[in-house]
Parts: sequence; C-alpha cells; structure tokens
Amino acid sequence: MASVDVPVALLGYGTVGAAVNRLLEEQADDIERATGHRLRVVKALVRDPAKPRAHPPEAGVLTTDVADILDDPSIELVAEVMGGVEPAGSHVLELLRRRKHVVTANKQLVATRGAELFSAASESGVQLRFEASVCAAIPVIKVLREALVVSNVHRVLGIVNGTTNFLLTEMEAGASYEDALAEAQARGYAEADPVDDVSGADAAAKMAILATVAFNSRVALADVDVAGIEEIDPLDLAAARELDMTIRLVGAARLVDGHVDVRVRPALVDKQHPLAKVDGAFNAVMLQGDAIREITLEGPGAGGVETASSVIADLASVIGTMGTGFLQNDAAWRQLPPLPRGESRSPFYFRLSVEDRAGALARVAEELAEREISVARLLQHANGDGAALHVITHEARAGALDEALDAIAALPDVHRRPQPLPVISERGVVELGWA
Amino acid sequence: MASVDVPVALLGYGTVGAAVNRLLEEQADDIERATGHRLRVVKALVRDPAKPRAHPPEAGVLTTDVADILDDPSIELVAEVMGGVEPAGSHVLELLRRRKHVVTANKQLVATRGAELFSAASESGVQLRFEASVCAAIPVIKVLREALVVSNVHRVLGIVNGTTNFLLTEMEAGASYEDALAEAQARGYAEADPVDDVSGADAAAKMAILATVAFNSRVALADVDVAGIEEIDPLDLAAARELDMTIRLVGAARLVDGHVDVRVRPALVDKQHPLAKVDGAFNAVMLQGDAIREITLEGPGAGGVETASSVIADLASVIGTMGTGFLQNDAAWRQLPPLPRGESRSPFYFRLSVEDRAGALARVAEELAEREISVARLLQHANGDGAALHVITHEARAGALDEALDAIAALPDVHRRPQPLPVISERGVVELGWA
Repeated sequence: MASVDVPVALLGYGTVGAAVNRLLEEQADDIERATGHRLRVVKALVRDPAKPRAHPPEAGVLTTDVADILDDPSIELVAEVMGGVEPAGSHVLELLRRRKHVVTANKQLVATRGAELFSAASESGVQLRFEASVCAAIPVIKVLREALVVSNVHRVLGIVNGTTNFLLTEMEAGASYEDALAEAQARGYAEADPVDDVSGADAAAKMAILATVAFNSRVALADVDVAGIEEIDPLDLAAARELDMTIRLVGAARLVDGHVDVRVRPALVDKQHPLAKVDGAFNAVMLQGDAIREITLEGPGAGGVETASSVIADLASVIGTMGTGFLQNDAAWRQLPPLPRGESRSPFYFRLSVEDRAGALARVAEELAEREISVARLLQHANGDGAALHVITHEARAGALDEALDAIAALPDVHRRPQPLPVISERGVVELGWA
Repeated sequence: MASVDVPVALLGYGTVGAAVNRLLEEQADDIERATGHRLRVVKALVRDPAKPRAHPPEAGVLTTDVADILDDPSIELVAEVMGGVEPAGSHVLELLRRRKHVVTANKQLVATRGAELFSAASESGVQLRFEASVCAAIPVIKVLREALVVSNVHRVLGIVNGTTNFLLTEMEAGASYEDALAEAQARGYAEADPVDDVSGADAAAKMAILATVAFNSRVALADVDVAGIEEIDPLDLAAARELDMTIRLVGAARLVDGHVDVRVRPALVDKQHPLAKVDGAFNAVMLQGDAIREITLEGPGAGGVETASSVIADLASVIGTMGTGFLQNDAAWRQLPPLPRGESRSPFYFRLSVEDRAGALARVAEELAEREISVARLLQHANGDGAALHVITHEARAGALDEALDAIAALPDVHRRPQPLPVISERGVVELGWA
C-alpha cells in the first residue's frame, strides 16, 4: 500500500459513523504520524441518503448499494458501524471473502456469528478487528491479543454494562429501582426499553467475545449463563452494605481444567475488590494470567465518540500490520467444551425469609452440611414475626448449593426458594472459584 | 521475513533475559499463532558466560562480544534487558544505526537518552519499543501509541512506583516508616538501599517516558519536578484519614496551553478517586483525553516474568508491523516548553504547627487571601501547648502558595515552613489543576 490516502468505506453513517469520519478528518495528522498514511472515507452505505446527518460526508460518498463497496478494488478497508445482525453480517462476510479487512463495532454480530466471520477472515488472509464491539474506548481486545500474547489468561472478570452498574450504584445510595432507572434514562445511560441491559443480555454478548479472545476458543452467546438485576431486592443491598460488600452485575469467564465457564450474574463484591470501586456508568475488565498476575482496565464503556476512537485505532492497526501475517490467524482456533453448569465453584450469598428463626437456622445448616457446604458468614435480622437470614458460604459447587437450596425451600417455615449470588472477595492471586 | 524461525538477540541474560528465553520457548505456539513466526534466542550478550544462570541458554548463545550481534545480518531484532545507561545506551544506538529493531526494558536509558534513540530509530526506519520500561506488564505504552491514536491525551496521572505505594499503604494502616520499609524489603518490594524509590527518582523516570509518549514531546528526566515520601509525617497521614483522603506518591503529566508540566509528589488523594484505591505494590496509570474521557490501567508494576511478558509482546508487535511504517516515526516529534514551575495550578494541602492558635489562624488566612488563595477545608488539633492546623486550599497557583507559605513561615509563632502537597479529589471530567 503506497503512502497516499487510504480509501476507507463505512457500513452505516449514524452517530458512530459520523464521529469516525469527523475524527479521521480532524486527526489526520496524528493518524499519519502513527501509520504513515492518511485515511479518507470514500463510501458510506446508508438506507436513506437524504436523511439529515451530523457531520455529513462529501457529495458522492453516501450510497444505498453495497456493491459500490464490494466491487471497488481500491477499497481494502471497511468499518462496519451500522449495528444489528442482518444485513450487517452478510455484508461483513462478503467483504471478508473479497479479501477486504473489516473493523466492526457490532457486539451482537461478533457474539452471534463471530466463529463464521473469524474463519472467513482467516481463509482470506485479511483481518477482522472488533475492539469497539466491547466496552467502547477501553482497548481490552488489543491488550488481550497483542500485549498479553504469552500471559495464559485464565480468568476474565468484568463490569461490562454501564447501565446496570449505574442503576446498582444509585440503588446502593438509596434510590429505588424505578427512580434509578428514570435517572439513567434521563442521562442517556439507559434505553426507553432497558431489557437488553437489565436482563444481562448485553453483558453476556460482551463476555462471549472476551472469553473467545482470552481463551482462543469459540464461545457463543448461547453458552453464557445469564441472570439480570431485575430481582435484586433492597434487602440484598442492605445486607451487602452490612457485610462491607456491594452488589454488581459481574461477567466472569474462566478456564477450568480445559473447560470454559462464562457467566453473567449479580454478585456480592467485597468493597476492597477493584470491581467494587467501579462507580456509575463506567466499565472495568480484570484479566488474570500466569505472567501478568492481574491487569485491570477501566473506562467509559459506551459513547459515540469513544466507540469511534476504537474503530479508528483498529483501522490504524490494520494498516500498521497489513501483509505481515500479524493477527491474521483465526482468533478462536480451538473449541473447548463448556463447564457443566453445576460444576462451577464459588463462595455464594443467599437470603432466606423464615418464620421460626432458631429452628430454621438449624435445619438450613443441616441441609448445607449434608452437601459439604460450610457457612463463612451469617447475618440475621428480625423481619416481622420471623427473620431474614443472610448466608455467605465458603467455596461450593453451584450444583450442590442448588440442591441444598431446593431442600431448604421445601422446609415448612421457609417463604421462598432463595436465588444464590456469587461472592467476589479476593484478588486474583488467590483463586476463588468462578468469580 | 520468511515464515521461519526469527532469530532474536538479547543484551543481558539476568532475571528478565532468562524469563524472556524461557517464555519464548514455552509459549512458542502462542507466539506463532499471533505473529505467524517462531522466535528463537540465538545470541545473548553477558559479561561472564561461566556464571551459573536460571534457565541457561543453549551452548554457543552466550557471548561477551557485542560484535557477534551487531555484525550478524541475520539478527534483525534485539531485546535489551541488561539495564543501566552504559554500555546499554551505546549498544542500542549502534544496533538502531545498523537497522536492527530494538525492544528495551530499560527505564533509565529511555528516560535519559530517549530523544537520541528515537531519532536514530526513525532515521534508520526501524522500531524502538519500550513497553517493559514502564510498569512491567501493564501495557500503557501500547495503549497510548496504538489504541489512543486520536484521543488527544492531555493528562496522565499515575501511581508508578510500587515500593512507595506499599510503604504508604502500610503506614496508613498504622506502621511506622521504618517498619513498613523493613516489611517491603522482606517481601522483595524494596532494595536494601531504597533511595531511588523513596526519593521519587524511579517514578520520575517513568513519568518522563509516559509524558513523552502521551504528548509526543521530548520530556527529559531533568524536566520532572520531584519530591519523595521521606518527609511524610504520621500527622499528615492522620489528617488525610480524617479528611477521608489518603496519601499516595502521584506522578502527574499535563499539557497546559502548549506547555508540558510533569511532577512526582506525595499527594492527598480523595478516597473515592481511582488512584486512592490502588493498594500495596500495584501500579495504576490514568489517561485522560478528548475522545476517551479517562481510561485507567492497573496491575503489577514490577517483576521478572511480568517484565519479560512485556518484552515478548513488543517483540511480537515489531514482527507484526515490520515494513509497514507503523510506529516507525519518532515517538517525540515535537518539543513543547516546560510549564514554569510556579505556574502549575492545583488545590493544595499543608500543615502548620502554631503556638497561639487563634491569632495564628487569622494571620495565616490573611497571607493566603492577599495572594487570592481561598481555603476549602480546615482541620485543627490541639498539639501540646499550641495547635496543628491542616489546610486544604481551593485551586491555587503553586508560585502564589509558595510565597504565602514563605510569609507564613516568617510569622513569630509558626514552627516551620510547611511543605504543600497537591490534592487530587475529582475524576477527569472536572479538570482540577496539576493533579
């Protein structure tokens, strides 16, 4: 590639696309100093060229026909910023088959069709980069693939959804779920329909991508065990506070004896743990590996300009490595089996409402002990006529705890089947189970 | 470069060099998957080949003659892991002039002779990478140069010395300086002679490198304004605790109206600030820029294997970008003037021992007000017959505060000239002066 303008095509020209074009123009000198090249958007695929846009491109750039990009041999580099699985997926696949490098900001696409796309890129000898698909401006994919080459990363812990982290931060400060959600919507942190965030689905897609890259093994979105924050109760938050912990929606991916375990769940996090210190709409990802102990990256996990800055870093990195073979292998070259769900180990927290506290406690302890689950901490509160018991176990097999909780739920004076939350209380050096 | 073994030479074969050789062998498959190549150490320059070594290299690898590396045209890639400014500097310069790419872990070398080396690399069209020279395994140089290409980073805040952070963490928990130091030495966090760490010199070298890369402007070690932790008093730590703050040795680099301001000083850090949460021997670097808001990287800042993993990532990155022009520009292509020392702005903390508290407070307030420095918070403690005053100012010009403190020290009932500490209380979005 000669040291002249590098033509770039965009799929999509919304908030992120417009920011990419603007930054490519405004920071052309910085990009040239880093890469030796100037990048210029020559085509942008849109549905409606007549729509009013922020930072509109030059005349002739907008097109409604993807063939204008596919069939143009001068375009070797395309950024997909349209979102959605289709038609984005078909377009990206065809671009890779035609030996064009692709940079994508599309989390759903990479999480659901990554395997197919990685393999197409590898067959064509081109790059598929996707930094912007996870945690906006936080360069966690680059760090995993290019800085931690020999680190044997075996665990990734992340707060990868800013909406739920903001909601939990507000609820911890005393807001109700409804008020916290209204505040998040007012600030633009939550959609009108927040289900994708609060259900954990958004975090699950990001954890699937992170696990795939960290372990070089295809992890599909369907492999992620997900629970959202909808059922977090003020009683749980109050108990967490009393235990010097906080509740966060934590994504955890682990390599366990050649199996991959990827989960997204609300967890009790010790206030001294780095993930407990991530406030508001920020994201953080902690990477643990042999040679690095643990490295944590924290920053804004969303935003149009933040996302665009990652897209541009990927474009610059593709140009900087074209033709060298670097990262042109399949990012997921192996297929490790998922860990059976019950086999995941962690300390757990659960809360019980019981009528007769003395008798109930004895029976609960018995059901746990029968399954070799020992209690690490216990809080007890009066709760009307009965009591609320807050239990933290030592590390236990999730399947054993589930059996114990089924048995406990069947006890006569227990009000409902408790939902256990994993507990994250130690830093990486001490391995504590799934989270 | 064909897809066969890539010969690599090492300058030095101590702890880091041996770990580099071991990881290159053990993780050869991972490296090949990332780069398409296998790396092999073919020469290692040492002073005494007969010395017993961990993970000794194959026969014929060790040499005492640098010409074996300089004159071998098959060696295009060299890792300098010998440390010290000389002879490492002369060797690296000559290697670059002979168009060999160099990766270095040598902080002192890059901080003192970086300008000359960057320029030699640029003239030869080869790369000089130095990730391992700052914060061991934390990939902050890669993130700054390759991920934040268009971010206009304007401020870098860092806890970049693990020894002092460990000492301050221990002292905050009640240990004396002497006990904390003995503990740090017992754990291998501090040298027998800790002066390079506690004086701030080690942190200053790292901040000079970070400022150079972040602002693309040559910042020499001599440009950094340094103070160490030797004079931190238990009274300061107690006051910090009472103010819900903590004391940390903070490096701060800023772009201020086209000037560069780089400082290393003990600072009062609000407990809610991410840097206050970095405990023990860990390091953290916070990068603030237009497109990214702020990104923080945290991890172990020292260690042989951690450092080796960064050296190998740099080797892999050189191979992955050779011949593309990527990062083969001079990392410091401009020369911005330093900010005059008195012009730096920050909120400050200082502590006064006074005899007559009522009269003294009035005169202190007067000296501050005359220089338009306003008091944000005030703590007063009985202290023998007199009082200890703990003052936090609003943002002030450092020069104005110094004048005020000189005048205050001359007051009849003030015991000694206070040393002001900057205060870090807000996150990046709100700009608060130097730190």
